[in-house]
Amino acid sequence: MVGQRFVKMLSEDRWFDVECIAASKRTAGTRYGDNALGFEYSDEILDMTIEETSRALLDNYDIDIAFSALPADVAGTVEAQLAEEIAVATNSAAHRMDEDVPLLIPEVNPDHLALIDVQRQKGWKGSLVTNPNCSTIVMVLSLKPLLDAFGIRDVKVATMQAVSGAGFTGVSSMDILDNVIPYIGKEESKMETEPMKLLGTFDGNKINYAEFGVSALCTRVPVIDGHTESIFIELEQDPSVEEFTEALRTFSGLPQELNLPSAPKRPIEIRDVPLPRMHRDLGNGMSVTAGRIEKVAPHKFKYVVMGHNTIRGAVGASILNAELLAEKKYV
Amino acid sequence: MVGQRFVKMLSEDRWFDVECIAASKRTAGTRYGDNALGFEYSDEILDMTIEETSRALLDNYDIDIAFSALPADVAGTVEAQLAEEIAVATNSAAHRMDEDVPLLIPEVNPDHLALIDVQRQKGWKGSLVTNPNCSTIVMVLSLKPLLDAFGIRDVKVATMQAVSGAGFTGVSSMDILDNVIPYIGKEESKMETEPMKLLGTFDGNKINYAEFGVSALCTRVPVIDGHTESIFIELEQDPSVEEFTEALRTFSGLPQELNLPSAPKRPIEIRDVPLPRMHRDLGNGMSVTAGRIEKVAPHKFKYVVMGHNTIRGAVGASILNAELLAEKKYV
Amino acid sequence: MVGQRFVKMLSEDRWFDVECIAASKRTAGTRYGDNALGFEYSDEILDMTIEETSRALLDNYDIDIAFSALPADVAGTVEAQLAEEIAVATNSAAHRMDEDVPLLIPEVNPDHLALIDVQRQKGWKGSLVTNPNCSTIVMVLSLKPLLDAFGIRDVKVATMQAVSGAGFTGVSSMDILDNVIPYIGKEESKMETEPMKLLGTFDGNKINYAEFGVSALCTRVPVIDGHTESIFIELEQDPSVEEFTEALRTFSGLPQELNLPSAPKRPIEIRDVPLPRMHRDLGNGMSVTAGRIEKVAPHKFKYVVMGHNTIRGAVGASILNAELLAEKKYV
Amino acid sequence: MVGQRFVKMLSEDRWFDVECIAASKRTAGTRYGDNALGFEYSDEILDMTIEETSRALLDNYDIDIAFSALPADVAGTVEAQLAEEIAVATNSAAHRMDEDVPLLIPEVNPDHLALIDVQRQKGWKGSLVTNPNCSTIVMVLSLKPLLDAFGIRDVKVATMQAVSGAGFTGVSSMDILDNVIPYIGKEESKMETEPMKLLGTFDGNKINYAEFGVSALCTRVPVIDGHTESIFIELEQDPSVEEFTEALRTFSGLPQELNLPSAPKRPIEIRDVPLPRMHRDLGNGMSVTAGRIEKVAPHKFKYVVMGHNTIRGAVGASILNAELLAEKKYV
Repeated sequence: MVGQRFVKMLSEDRWFDVECIAASKRTAGTRYGDNALGFEYSDEILDMTIEETSRALLDNYDIDIAFSALPADVAGTVEAQLAEEIAVATNSAAHRMDEDVPLLIPEVNPDHLALIDVQRQKGWKGSLVTNPNCSTIVMVLSLKPLLDAFGIRDVKVATMQAVSGAGFTGVSSMDILDNVIPYIGKEESKMETEPMKLLGTFDGNKINYAEFGVSALCTRVPVIDGHTESIFIELEQDPSVEEFTEALRTFSGLPQELNLPSAPKRPIEIRDVPLPRMHRDLGNGMSVTAGRIEKVAPHKFKYVVMGHNTIRGAVGASILNAELLAEKKYV
Repeated sequence: MVGQRFVKMLSEDRWFDVECIAASKRTAGTRYGDNALGFEYSDEILDMTIEETSRALLDNYDIDIAFSALPADVAGTVEAQLAEEIAVATNSAAHRMDEDVPLLIPEVNPDHLALIDVQRQKGWKGSLVTNPNCSTIVMVLSLKPLLDAFGIRDVKVATMQAVSGAGFTGVSSMDILDNVIPYIGKEESKMETEPMKLLGTFDGNKINYAEFGVSALCTRVPVIDGHTESIFIELEQDPSVEEFTEALRTFSGLPQELNLPSAPKRPIEIRDVPLPRMHRDLGNGMSVTAGRIEKVAPHKFKYVVMGHNTIRGAVGASILNAELLAEKKYV
Repeated sequence: MVGQRFVKMLSEDRWFDVECIAASKRTAGTRYGDNALGFEYSDEILDMTIEETSRALLDNYDIDIAFSALPADVAGTVEAQLAEEIAVATNSAAHRMDEDVPLLIPEVNPDHLALIDVQRQKGWKGSLVTNPNCSTIVMVLSLKPLLDAFGIRDVKVATMQAVSGAGFTGVSSMDILDNVIPYIGKEESKMETEPMKLLGTFDGNKINYAEFGVSALCTRVPVIDGHTESIFIELEQDPSVEEFTEALRTFSGLPQELNLPSAPKRPIEIRDVPLPRMHRDLGNGMSVTAGRIEKVAPHKFKYVVMGHNTIRGAVGASILNAELLAEKKYV
Repeated sequence: MVGQRFVKMLSEDRWFDVECIAASKRTAGTRYGDNALGFEYSDEILDMTIEETSRALLDNYDIDIAFSALPADVAGTVEAQLAEEIAVATNSAAHRMDEDVPLLIPEVNPDHLALIDVQRQKGWKGSLVTNPNCSTIVMVLSLKPLLDAFGIRDVKVATMQAVSGAGFTGVSSMDILDNVIPYIGKEESKMETEPMKLLGTFDGNKINYAEFGVSALCTRVPVIDGHTESIFIELEQDPSVEEFTEALRTFSGLPQELNLPSAPKRPIEIRDVPLPRMHRDLGNGMSVTAGRIEKVAPHKFKYVVMGHNTIRGAVGASILNAELLAEKKYV
């Protein structure tokens, strides 16, 4: 799912061209169009022959940047090999928590990109940049302005996640029709650890993790695209609902300032009731939508945030990361 | 939806017979079978003529107990009138928080039934017993054994509620297909206030409310029956996961002791992952299912509880209340 | 649903501007944005005040053409009144079968537009053009090239129709989740009679209806947008599957020739398996998709055709009709 | 899916006990409860160890009859081997069209059971009985009384089939949410050929196939259980709608006469609009529901029939076959 959306979005991108498509040995040598089911592509893309993912690709193609949606077990080795030579923007989880690898959301922690200089100290000519897990991105985009404005003590989040997050064959129709599944393997630990790195501070050498608590309970629901998250948050300060809402509404970052092609005009849209089917495509799928904001008690709020999990939460996230790399002359 | 399930379940009940079916002036006089779409009924039921709901029914029919699924605005007056003469078991919200009306879950607070003696002090020959809101019942069945065993400091709950909770025409297919709706009118305040009464203590005259905090964020999902609830709870004591689970698993109450017809053998079933479509009919829809129990930090747990909203959460709840009334000779 | 999509599509149209929005007395006077839930609109549209639909609108606004999605019972009178003065393009069923009113699909029977000259004989300065029922349009776009190339003896069609066809509140979630509903009021008779007028011949005065039989069995399915139709057809001639497919694939008409703004490049796209979610937006929702073409016996074929019911089947249909009106100087 | 429902239904059967559960080499040796996800089972069943399917089972267990849901490629050899010794009732397609194997629906062609005597001429001590494909059974139950009463010239059928027909992992949620899929591999040819054998006549040695035409177009829809079929039929005679309906309503067969445990009281229930979610469990899932009956033209009718695909269409079908085998002393 994510791999195919990469091909779809990159084939229509303003800054990047698809030079080659690589996958595992199993499909290598076959026509892309005979494997791709999820989107409508141009004939040029459909007729490309799938290559096997390996460092050898660099000898045969003129590649400036590799986008990766590899499974975590494969990504570990290959991505590091490629990063010795070229820029790599990956959605894979393999290297997300590595000390010298930026876990990046350009609106949230663009200064972490300087970790690439740390990477280069070990001889890499290229670089490796990762984006967080889809449900983490949607949540952290809303946490960042709250942290900056009011400080955060504690977060509890209950998700309702779309089936596309599990890939084309990840969730059986027998499991999800007239049903919800309150279990998604490894998702909760990602949501509980990645935000600490994302919202940590870079001291020139390493990231010092943020320290508030996040507790997550993740559920799959019968929605195609769009993760919805119910959040209970306790803040250091005690803003009004209006101040809380305004912090979200006016949030903007470096991608907006640089006017990067994939940057949404408003990273956070405010609606009374965020709805996946109606709002997931706002900002071409790159805006998240927040709403249902209520004050529960002094310092304590509840709200909902929703975002397109395979665009803002995966493919668009990697492309925005790559755009920042390019703008900063790392590509 | 609730009204029709009342007719369906009562027409097959061991203790109760359907003497008459009453509704608003609009449908009064018509054949029940020409109005009922949701279930398969016996010909006898289908051929009954709908009466208009009023005190006059008591003159024309031999009624011992009235079951009510009236809209809250109508229920207020009519239920009180009927209760002057006969027993009334209602699912309506109108009188739930009245000082002298038991808000009853027989496994949770059967001693509150003694409020009927307070009711009789004002001259009623009958009585009025209410059951809580559907999402409240599912949650409180799991809170009761935790409160008794470990004490509760704080609860945050994010629900994923079935469409049947809104009635036959309550949720449009255009709103819910490929979507979730994180808003259900008045639901959150019910979930935040009703548990305090249910888990309060009766001092012989009135209920002294429980005092921990409940914060709720309610969402509608594309599920026919079965409300699923993600709960973050902080306890006074600090049990192990096993002790926490055992408290839920072994929970039992007066209905089980009295072996009431609608009482499930186990009020709480434990499953690794509670699933509405697979588990909502456990205990004939009267058991709730808990699972995904994890310890987050000392005193802090997360878990999921799910129950059939129109059986355990509404119609079955009223019938179980009525069975307790009958057993206690209030009918 | 159709009304709101009219406002959405016309507000973004190249040829037409939204001068005023009118509805029934009930909503007249209110802000459009307080009534419209289905789409994201510009602030300018959201802030428009809804007018009451009547002839008086012509005095207060500078209107060249009225687009109508009125209920059939209201449309009868008002549309005829407006047509005395201005052009009216309607999706309503009220006047579809009127002798002097073109029932129009611009790719299929553009010559029927000459009925406007018959309308003007009764003193109208304006004109009235209707588009067929949504499921009719999808089917007839595929029948037209088959009729022209091979002649048609008989058609049997079983539909699987999207819930949007019934409007925002037309289909309850309780009725359609985990279900199909093989009944849609009045739909089958529309599918059986409208094609005869659409595929009839205009003799300068009136339409002589086509004469083959159409039998339809209509079902609602849990799909948001996109009507899918399983068709069994018997032809006069006996083409090969390739010839049959080629007739569909190469179909093109006057809108393509005139390059009208809403005209899809290919009115019929061919895919192995037409799928509503994947293909309904082809040609901006104005192409239908055909596939699963098989020869059952000499002269006998089966195939599937699918199209976006509220774009090609309703709003886009009316707009394309209006574009043809404008191009032909009737506006 | 079918295999698990076999275990579920047989473990609660009045006539049969589950002696052993066998599957492929891959799962042999594991606990049944570690593989079974679809239903709630007794502890006794959950704790059974899965055996490998082979003739050797007959040496280690006391088995009178084997129920098979094997994949067609495996079923061919193993089922024939088992049938040399014991009775085999299979849902597999492997032997359905074999000359000496009854393709059986007990209400439709119980006399075909005599083919077992032909089987025994080749030395088998056991027997092999097959049931048709799920969508065939639902349709043919309605065709049989029409054939007997009025004769059949031609049938066209468009199906809307439940996802359970493809097994637990057969249909991905990404493919079916907000979608229909008008393609099911091999289904259409089964629906076009099996009825000819089922409705054929047995002359003491072999089946002489029925000869009218059936043309099928099969679609998967987002429904859990229950295949719905839109049928256009042309009859030899020209009954009224009432006579047509009455032929369906009064249909009854040998299982009803013998009062077999799984036989529904009425094989065909009549409802205005057959609905999978509301009617699939009628007769414990063994009745099909017909409705929407209309006369299109002399001799020509359209109607809808719906049935539970994994009960009446698979597991219940095999069990009813086995009950007839037992009653007729073949077990």
